[in-house]
Amino acid sequence: MSAGEGVAAGAVDAEVGAAVDAAVARAVASGTGSTSRADRAAWLEALAAALEEHRGELIAIAHRETHLSETRLDGEVTRTAAQLRFFAGVAREGSYLEATLDSPDPSTTPPRPDLRRMLRPIGAVAVFTASNFPFAFSVLGNDTASALAAGCAVVVKAHPGHPELSRRTAELAVAALAGAGAPDGVITLVEGVEAGVALVQHPSIAAVGFTGSARGGRALFDLACARPAPIPFYGELGSINPVVITEAAAKDRAAELAAGLVGSFTRDGGQYCTKPGLVFVPAGTGFEDALAALVADAPAQRLLTQGMSGAFARGADAFARRDDVDVIGTVRELSDGVDVTAPSAPVAILVDAQHFVASSEDFLAECFGPLTVVVRYVDEAELNAAIGELEGSLTATIQHAPDEDVAALTTALSGVAGRVVFNGWPTGVAIAWAQHHGGSWPATTASVHTSVGATAIRRFLTPVAYQDAPASALPLELRDGNPLGIPRRVDGALRA
Amino acid sequence: MSAGEGVAAGAVDAEVGAAVDAAVARAVASGTGSTSRADRAAWLEALAAALEEHRGELIAIAHRETHLSETRLDGEVTRTAAQLRFFAGVAREGSYLEATLDSPDPSTTPPRPDLRRMLRPIGAVAVFTASNFPFAFSVLGNDTASALAAGCAVVVKAHPGHPELSRRTAELAVAALAGAGAPDGVITLVEGVEAGVALVQHPSIAAVGFTGSARGGRALFDLACARPAPIPFYGELGSINPVVITEAAAKDRAAELAAGLVGSFTRDGGQYCTKPGLVFVPAGTGFEDALAALVADAPAQRLLTQGMSGAFARGADAFARRDDVDVIGTVRELSDGVDVTAPSAPVAILVDAQHFVASSEDFLAECFGPLTVVVRYVDEAELNAAIGELEGSLTATIQHAPDEDVAALTTALSGVAGRVVFNGWPTGVAIAWAQHHGGSWPATTASVHTSVGATAIRRFLTPVAYQDAPASALPLELRDGNPLGIPRRVDGALRA
Repeated sequence: MSAGEGVAAGAVDAEVGAAVDAAVARAVASGTGSTSRADRAAWLEALAAALEEHRGELIAIAHRETHLSETRLDGEVTRTAAQLRFFAGVAREGSYLEATLDSPDPSTTPPRPDLRRMLRPIGAVAVFTASNFPFAFSVLGNDTASALAAGCAVVVKAHPGHPELSRRTAELAVAALAGAGAPDGVITLVEGVEAGVALVQHPSIAAVGFTGSARGGRALFDLACARPAPIPFYGELGSINPVVITEAAAKDRAAELAAGLVGSFTRDGGQYCTKPGLVFVPAGTGFEDALAALVADAPAQRLLTQGMSGAFARGADAFARRDDVDVIGTVRELSDGVDVTAPSAPVAILVDAQHFVASSEDFLAECFGPLTVVVRYVDEAELNAAIGELEGSLTATIQHAPDEDVAALTTALSGVAGRVVFNGWPTGVAIAWAQHHGGSWPATTASVHTSVGATAIRRFLTPVAYQDAPASALPLELRDGNPLGIPRRVDGALRA
Repeated sequence: MSAGEGVAAGAVDAEVGAAVDAAVARAVASGTGSTSRADRAAWLEALAAALEEHRGELIAIAHRETHLSETRLDGEVTRTAAQLRFFAGVAREGSYLEATLDSPDPSTTPPRPDLRRMLRPIGAVAVFTASNFPFAFSVLGNDTASALAAGCAVVVKAHPGHPELSRRTAELAVAALAGAGAPDGVITLVEGVEAGVALVQHPSIAAVGFTGSARGGRALFDLACARPAPIPFYGELGSINPVVITEAAAKDRAAELAAGLVGSFTRDGGQYCTKPGLVFVPAGTGFEDALAALVADAPAQRLLTQGMSGAFARGADAFARRDDVDVIGTVRELSDGVDVTAPSAPVAILVDAQHFVASSEDFLAECFGPLTVVVRYVDEAELNAAIGELEGSLTATIQHAPDEDVAALTTALSGVAGRVVFNGWPTGVAIAWAQHHGGSWPATTASVHTSVGATAIRRFLTPVAYQDAPASALPLELRDGNPLGIPRRVDGALRA
């Protein structure tokens, strides 16, 4: 959902309502929940192959609609196919089911019967796609891949920033799924703000995955909670991604760090939820001079949507007008009107730590696009006071010297961020079992599970325990002898 | 929270607000999140021992305040101590941390760094205790035990149905924790509806566990979602617990089933969230005659609170006045005024399946206390139509013949209930790794994790991933060589 899109509850246009009803009915009727893990893994692989097969065609549409470079989009197709295959592997491996068996024991209080527990698909899922990843967080992105792996049919709300790409991807997906023997209705696309509102409120939707703006995400979260039967809403709403450069690191390699920062915060127009938007730098290390030279040379980029271009110009202007900051780069004059089809140039805002602490709420506002705020600190006390102002974030980064003790800093930052990066930059989220992409509010609406990493699948599952069940009534994964050979816990002991 | 208690947002009395602030501040200052699993396991065992040591004194207070029998309360103390020790074992075993390590791989898109992920405590937790389990879901119940195991300090909102017991239990807990070397502030007690409201809205509370009424739970859930920074609210709100008796089972053993049902729905005054409140029985099998004889002989029980006695009388009266039901047992006349200190006698309401379907919303209303609704069906079509009306429930039960195929029935019921019981009764929830106590709305507010079974601990944890971290900045559980010997996933492979 782009920053400019409004969301409100209330009457939905009858035609839109009917389209959403039909999409959800198809999802429910698909019977996705009773398919096998092996079949769903094959569907995911067929989807990955379809993306790769149509790579050129899809990149061309995406480039036209999003202004992202073809190189970047090519990498994103590769990554999206890898995500789909990753979740196929997660489904096949089967430990995500948390299969657990306990033998009867009449001596306990209360007596223990034969109990066998595993997770089942939660039902039809709504997925709201992001503007800034037209493949990796869109129609066939992480939310869809993890929901399908879990056994949930998906109704995708297309992002208005790349409508043609969304439709073409969905078309290819439906064909690939049919070719892989999947039932009809596993993925359906709907479009428009009203359709999204109707989707979150639909009684047959069991959970929502969302990647987008804080404003749009909060509005939909509120609708999900206010339903007569509330449902889980997994929203990833953006993030400021603080970076701490220690004194020792700045002394060692100020110029290298400035180059790394500029590369990360201007990458693809700074349009990443993991963009480093706030950097704590020791004062007087030459970092600022290096930064100024690099920002001047960094390319401008046309942003994803015209709404984002306007919002970026307003956000940069609000920072630049403050009397407690210095500005590196060119901020466009709003008074002349902003050409929202022109490229946006990178901007760095510099502020002393004491001023940051005095107005932290202003400085913590996310400015989506190529802008970062550099906070100068003079000593550890100032740094710690500034860190104390941080809110939940997807990442936090520590740039440190090789043998420096950063344990206390790590503890402080791991309390606000879902991923702590050491001597690297937060952009570039690898696909891995150990990956996590989350953080407490306002980074996400639900810090317990998020959309990246193997446990993204857990969002779309709910437990069921079988007590003294006859074998024929049990899923194969819970039967004696472990016929499908998955990892299980038996009488308390994990068996890999 | 008892049925009569109201909850509203808004101004909280200054003294109450200050008491809640102080309790939360102590919880946060305790540093519970940075203690070791081994230490917390020892605290839990000390709490179990303290309960057992003071068993007689506590049971006497509980009996006076709740009217539950001393035998039942004695069993509940045993179970509560077992729960505390169970979560000590879960903490020690350590697989709940989901420790996951991935080696670097520069060949992937994007390149994979060294990634290590585990769960960390979410922060200070609020626990709302239940009236009907003054030990097992109260000050030292499942919510508290699982939160402490996770590493979260707890502020307990005492239930007004057993205030003295709550205070005495908290006093003993504080002493036991101090004796076990725990920091101050690990458990604090607050009292009163207003304190509960302030607690859910407190900015330093990170999650809520709740067991109680649908009305109170929904009101607090709404407050948790409406916070500027929303937090997860894990509410268990009650349940109707449908039972299906197949034709073959009724033919085989109608009298035995009637006895089992009466034993289960009248047990301890029917004051269980797992009480079978709805039973589908084939018509004309002699089951009803057996039931009538048994209900007449079943003892009346004084209910937990006067509010519950009144609500039970009104609920039973509303059923009995319908012209589409038959009534077994004595329903008190409301016109004479109800003596809310008198015992409540068991009642069974009988209705034909077609009438049940026509007014299912009325029949699905939970009547807390010794009442069950028996739905007579004439064939499988009627049974399936009736099952189609069910809402989310904590349990569903199938009473079947030994070789009967109940796979389809199991699939249907596992879609609405978190636990499916075969040839047993839903009351009596064993403590086990494979246990689950949840279900979709209205059984719980969050069907993803609930308060019973090992994964209850998962509610109070949030992930953090470390990217390219120096060993000294990592928790011991994630370091090379697995120094604490916990189950981990390494490069995708689970190692038990």
